[in-house]
Amino acid sequence: MRGKRIMEEMVFLKEVPILRDLDEEELRQFLRIARRVRFPRGAAILTEGQTGDVMYIMEEGTVEISKTLVLLKGQEDVRDRDKVLTKLSAENHAIFGEVALFEQSKRTATVTALTDCSLLEISKADFVRLAEEQPRLGYKITRNIAQLLCSRLRKADEDTVKLTTALSLALSR
Amino acid sequence: MRGKRIMEEMVFLKEVPILRDLDEEELRQFLRIARRVRFPRGAAILTEGQTGDVMYIMEEGTVEISKTLVLLKGQEDVRDRDKVLTKLSAENHAIFGEVALFEQSKRTATVTALTDCSLLEISKADFVRLAEEQPRLGYKITRNIAQLLCSRLRKADEDTVKLTTALSLALSR
Repeated sequence: MRGKRIMEEMVFLKEVPILRDLDEEELRQFLRIARRVRFPRGAAILTEGQTGDVMYIMEEGTVEISKTLVLLKGQEDVRDRDKVLTKLSAENHAIFGEVALFEQSKRTATVTALTDCSLLEISKADFVRLAEEQPRLGYKITRNIAQLLCSRLRKADEDTVKLTTALSLALSR
Repeated sequence: MRGKRIMEEMVFLKEVPILRDLDEEELRQFLRIARRVRFPRGAAILTEGQTGDVMYIMEEGTVEISKTLVLLKGQEDVRDRDKVLTKLSAENHAIFGEVALFEQSKRTATVTALTDCSLLEISKADFVRLAEEQPRLGYKITRNIAQLLCSRLRKADEDTVKLTTALSLALSR
């Protein structure tokens, strides 16, 4: 890690939800597998449909998460539309791309830098190696990410209920 | 564990996806926190909206997962309907309720026994204690559950895309 002093970095990392409960030595070990990367405003950090094997912790900046939805405007008028799902900010110590630590699969959304961004990038290979060498650390981080996945699953579930209700209303007109 | 010989139990557990990569000693340790419970056909094993702190591994039988959806049949005709989301079978070594190991929240669906069922019940408190005492075991199981959560998230995501497409079609009629 360059560019910022380690102590400043540690203070920041302590606030990241998926790193909660890690002691100083564990944070230091985690920091060893993190690589700082920068993206200019407008850059696509992740692209929907591409495979990837890294996750990101936001250090500076704001990103937008969007997804292509197929919208049918009539029998033959099919249009793709980018739908913005949410924005994430470094102020909230947000992370994204964490699914890549657990499965090899395509990105389900595009992440675009809305401002210049500084991110910590963690690769699956490095994370798995660290977790196997330091299972207590591996357990803590994996449990924290599992909690995050649970809350995302809950939100997806609520969206399904809302969409089903809207669909039933649209069909009953 | 009573009723089945340990060896038979071990052969079964080795096939459960969230227990993959566990060695025999780790499976034995896991078995110590598992409690066998039986539900007769028709019983509600989990009830949507109730809080819970246990997960289940299916040992025998089949269950149905359902959810109450609010359907609007017109301006004032609001109806709740139970929608069956899926069925799970012991043949697939299915698990359910795993979110309860990571967060204190309400069940998002009802699980009903379609046949007499035999299940292994694991409580959050016992799991957390085991994972803290045996972090390597805790890491492996938590990583496997995180993979399962990722695949459920992916499916929820696909459902959202399908529902949005259906909604756009309904609105364009």
